Amino acid sequence: MVELLSVAQAVDLVLGYAGHFGTEQVPLAEASGRILQQTISAERAQPPYDRVMMDGIAYRYGTGSVLECRGVQRAGVPGQELAEGAVCLDVMTGAVLPQGADTVVPVERLLRNGKQVQFEEGYTPEKGQFIHRKGSDCAAGHELLSRGLRLNGPALAVLAGNGHATVEVAARPSIGIIATGDELVDVDASVRDWEIRRSNEYALTGALVSRGFTCLERSVVPDDLARTILALEKQLARHDVLVLSGGVSMGQFDHVPKALMKLGVERVFHKVAQRPGKPLWFGVGPEGQRVFGLPGNPVSATCCATRYVIPMLLAGQGVVRPETYSVQLAAQASRVPTLTRYLPVRVTHDESGRAMAMPHPMSTSGDFSFLAATDGFVELAPGEGLAPAGSHAVFHGW
Amino acid sequence: MVELLSVAQAVDLVLGYAGHFGTEQVPLAEASGRILQQTISAERAQPPYDRVMMDGIAYRYGTGSVLECRGVQRAGVPGQELAEGAVCLDVMTGAVLPQGADTVVPVERLLRNGKQVQFEEGYTPEKGQFIHRKGSDCAAGHELLSRGLRLNGPALAVLAGNGHATVEVAARPSIGIIATGDELVDVDASVRDWEIRRSNEYALTGALVSRGFTCLERSVVPDDLARTILALEKQLARHDVLVLSGGVSMGQFDHVPKALMKLGVERVFHKVAQRPGKPLWFGVGPEGQRVFGLPGNPVSATCCATRYVIPMLLAGQGVVRPETYSVQLAAQASRVPTLTRYLPVRVTHDESGRAMAMPHPMSTSGDFSFLAATDGFVELAPGEGLAPAGSHAVFHGW
Repeated sequence: MVELLSVAQAVDLVLGYAGHFGTEQVPLAEASGRILQQTISAERAQPPYDRVMMDGIAYRYGTGSVLECRGVQRAGVPGQELAEGAVCLDVMTGAVLPQGADTVVPVERLLRNGKQVQFEEGYTPEKGQFIHRKGSDCAAGHELLSRGLRLNGPALAVLAGNGHATVEVAARPSIGIIATGDELVDVDASVRDWEIRRSNEYALTGALVSRGFTCLERSVVPDDLARTILALEKQLARHDVLVLSGGVSMGQFDHVPKALMKLGVERVFHKVAQRPGKPLWFGVGPEGQRVFGLPGNPVSATCCATRYVIPMLLAGQGVVRPETYSVQLAAQASRVPTLTRYLPVRVTHDESGRAMAMPHPMSTSGDFSFLAATDGFVELAPGEGLAPAGSHAVFHGW
Repeated sequence: MVELLSVAQAVDLVLGYAGHFGTEQVPLAEASGRILQQTISAERAQPPYDRVMMDGIAYRYGTGSVLECRGVQRAGVPGQELAEGAVCLDVMTGAVLPQGADTVVPVERLLRNGKQVQFEEGYTPEKGQFIHRKGSDCAAGHELLSRGLRLNGPALAVLAGNGHATVEVAARPSIGIIATGDELVDVDASVRDWEIRRSNEYALTGALVSRGFTCLERSVVPDDLARTILALEKQLARHDVLVLSGGVSMGQFDHVPKALMKLGVERVFHKVAQRPGKPLWFGVGPEGQRVFGLPGNPVSATCCATRYVIPMLLAGQGVVRPETYSVQLAAQASRVPTLTRYLPVRVTHDESGRAMAMPHPMSTSGDFSFLAATDGFVELAPGEGLAPAGSHAVFHGW
């Protein structure tokens, strides 16, 4: 018996085809969650002027604690000149520090009597207080955001604050999701005793959409070689990535590998030493299309999408921060001697901050219903016996 | 001096107005990330028939190890009747177990010679193997998904598998994001030395969109009471929730509270014992509109949105699983004696699964650029001295 490809080998092969799907320029308000493909530097020094940090007055330190207020320095206008002597200007948070002033006193510390402003009893300001100095955060040209960042709220604000109304992000591949199998009926059709509703396409849709991959088309092909070839030919012409489920096992009606071969899709591998998901098929089409043949079993398909399809797509976007992380097993779990095991778990953080992974009881890999109560799976290396409670494993989220 | 509202008190007040924005029915393929508002039960027993789990043959245990193959039991068709004696049927994964068969032998264990099928040397099947028994996962009517679940891939698959082409999810409130402040210029305008570009609206957009709140309108009002009233009147009529930033401090041009009062928005509170974000304002409009007046400082606005706006919106959707979790401080951090401190951090899981929160060095609360390198903040209770490295705190993600 030929030795099966290990998970690490198979992942390496898939990532070798991660490629890149180009970039596109999108308006800032639509860029949330997209992957940055340019370096963002400070447009100006930050802050761009000596910035008042509190509502109150600005004055020259040492000119006294009873001051004559000579006017208002609002935000959004050039800095005024402060006259000599025991004088001040009212200032607003965010305003330019008036020229000649060097200290800000907050309004809560002031008593007012007409134009006369007096510090409250016993209050002594510190020279220079409540001024956010020009350039103290960064100089102009300082790198603020780097490629591969997933744009969250603060990153969008940095882009806006530095004059980027649009931003260059990774273009998203067009993805065809294809279900196979004569036993599958539509979600809204009536279902007979021997039939099952199609569901893998929705599990895949959820996994893809939650990562921002929204260029999706769902279709279905029957268990017939000629029609499988026709359908796949059309899908290959339309998409950068195909994700099929079903039809890759060893059954005589598993036409997918045959059909793909006919269409010039070169097999990179078929079968991986993993449970579930052993029959996984991966190949590359004549135009470089990445083609995944996931097993039809819903748990297998979901695990394989999580372990192979998503990482390849994220790598293709240039994402620098991994989604995976280490967790502790909250209960023991049995390993499989020669296969990597994907064990669905729910992850919660205990009070001390430990990420605890609780395996969900499951009867068979066909038992899909329980997966919605889990967050992803942990990967257990091939081995004898049990992985004890408290041992560490890498978690992959759905 | 009046004692400031504590964070816990302020959060309670805000959550008291979480309300609910109704439900809507959406197609399954558009439901990813939405919050389920119905209970989903098993349409049928799962699996709905005795289901073959491997490609191979099905036979009656004990009839021998050399069998005559009488045909094929494909998936998607009713179960055939297996004849008496040492006979078998080819079976496909997912097929109905033929009537009279009780055991499946995988194709890898078989030698074939025309119609004759023989087990490989030394192979002994177990009676009943590789059959996923009808109802073994759950009975018909068993509750599979409950209200308040955020729909991920597996949940969508469960919905599809149980005949739900559409699903009832929480409707999303319409949200108006409003920037105030004369010093603010548009992202694509030229900016003068004393001006700052508007950015809070993008930080808020990112926070909202990443949680699925996409019914957003962004607008801006100048530092003028009459125009602020006009603009806010229009926004109150259009939205369920208003999130303003700026104009809530004590400056004489901070018109927001005055304008809101004129428009019949009742103040629930103004100011909270927290840093940053002390000037936070919250009120409720005549039609029940929730109105947040966030401080204009970008770090303050982002922290307040994370601590108040997002939790209220999630509670309004009926989300049952909290987004927050405990982490360990990777470095010591100073507390503030009388204020809750929000300390921006980057969270990584170490090899043993501990979530470690690394505070980001920051000069002032006006230093916004660094926030894009953080994941959220930890909340440090008011107190003297330092929170030591290794101590625990609750993390709130951006």
